[in-house]
Amino acid sequence: MDHILVGNGSDELLALVLRATIDPRDRVAFPVPTYSLYETLVAAQGGEAVTLPFPEDFRLPPALGRARARVTFLCNPNSPSGTLVRLPAIEALAREVDGVLVVDEAYVDFAPTHALGLVGRLPNVLVLRTLSKSFSLAGLRVGLAFGHPELLAGLRTVKDSYNVGRLPQVAALAALGDLPAMRANVARIRATRDRLTAGLQRLGFDVLPSEANFVLARRPGVDQTPTARALAARDILVRHFAVPGLHDALRVTVGTDEEIDALLEALAAS
Amino acid sequence: MDHILVGNGSDELLALVLRATIDPRDRVAFPVPTYSLYETLVAAQGGEAVTLPFPEDFRLPPALGRARARVTFLCNPNSPSGTLVRLPAIEALAREVDGVLVVDEAYVDFAPTHALGLVGRLPNVLVLRTLSKSFSLAGLRVGLAFGHPELLAGLRTVKDSYNVGRLPQVAALAALGDLPAMRANVARIRATRDRLTAGLQRLGFDVLPSEANFVLARRPGVDQTPTARALAARDILVRHFAVPGLHDALRVTVGTDEEIDALLEALAAS
Repeated sequence: MDHILVGNGSDELLALVLRATIDPRDRVAFPVPTYSLYETLVAAQGGEAVTLPFPEDFRLPPALGRARARVTFLCNPNSPSGTLVRLPAIEALAREVDGVLVVDEAYVDFAPTHALGLVGRLPNVLVLRTLSKSFSLAGLRVGLAFGHPELLAGLRTVKDSYNVGRLPQVAALAALGDLPAMRANVARIRATRDRLTAGLQRLGFDVLPSEANFVLARRPGVDQTPTARALAARDILVRHFAVPGLHDALRVTVGTDEEIDALLEALAAS
Repeated sequence: MDHILVGNGSDELLALVLRATIDPRDRVAFPVPTYSLYETLVAAQGGEAVTLPFPEDFRLPPALGRARARVTFLCNPNSPSGTLVRLPAIEALAREVDGVLVVDEAYVDFAPTHALGLVGRLPNVLVLRTLSKSFSLAGLRVGLAFGHPELLAGLRTVKDSYNVGRLPQVAALAALGDLPAMRANVARIRATRDRLTAGLQRLGFDVLPSEANFVLARRPGVDQTPTARALAARDILVRHFAVPGLHDALRVTVGTDEEIDALLEALAAS
């Protein structure tokens, strides 16, 4: 099991990568918008976050591989866009970066491809997984890091000796021992995601092709703050990001079919 | 609950104190011999460990409070000696040190006094507890830090957002809701500890007065490596520390009465 390290959630594994790798003011690069924890962790560790804006279609920013970063984060599928970068582009990025490429695959079970195959071939690639999304076990705090044994040895030197307790270990083994249950969960969410996407498009939203368990819906140039507030007043909670470039978007998590119907009705009425 | 922070074991809380407090080459002081993790954590964080030998009777080394340390660790009761420093001495130490005094009370439920009362009065005192010893829940990884809200706020800035999962939270609440079970466990262990101490003394060992769930037994000047090996050959595992000043000692955890009888018999035969 030298190629696997178990973490107290994949958030702990992200923190361990930075603690093991970067010195004060070292550069850590990632495309934005993305998972907001990256910026927090880089600041906590005293590093310098180098953020490169995704283009409109959420392909990789071409300059990402030339950012001279000790660590590069790629959330794939990305949050909040739901978009997926394909394997050839990830492999090219891994070969171009100077340091470690962390492919954060928290949402990858909802997507058609994954990057685990790169771990055996490229010593600077670390792939992170979690039981918090496709396994619906966020409260378990179990994440997995797959990477070259030397890369993982570095993480082990800075992790707490006993970072994952006995209860989550037992529960995680049970969950990983029943992949059909996870796959059924994923199939249900993907079917509902298709309905949600079509429904939002009928209502006039631009919807990026999502490979995650949420979709990003935009009304280009139209601030969605009032929409998010109107939905919240009906106890429908969607994510609105008050940041430049995302004010006209809503991130909608794929709920049950009933929840999605309620959302689409509320949006049609607003 | 501003005076309490829950950790992924008290080991995580020890690491958080150092991450929140010390810069490279800052001094961290503690009397030795003690819990070996302190030295490991200080090295991992790039600090300078300032170790002060306990005297023979394991009272506080008088110079400890003048060590000019950002953080001072006191394991109380101490491992591996089992000895307890009394409250007036701890309070005097807290007033004398320049920085934070961490009183690691992992074993305190086996002792007659504790330092929680200092937390309200002295803003630089942090008291650590764990469910790993008196509650017999080492696999749960739940520790508690009690301290001034400002001190805990510092720890919160460097801890993982979700450091303790849902399962250990539920189990910890159940355990803390049944203190009589813990106290019965402690009473049993203390009674067996008395028998163990008397038995070891009859066999010619010097035994320090223990307030923990183990005792340190010495044959002054006589290396106990062969004794530990002979016991291991009979599947009786005791701790022998191959370090200066402890080569003539064995640390024996208080097991069941049957286990203690087997140990005393084996020692008598050796």
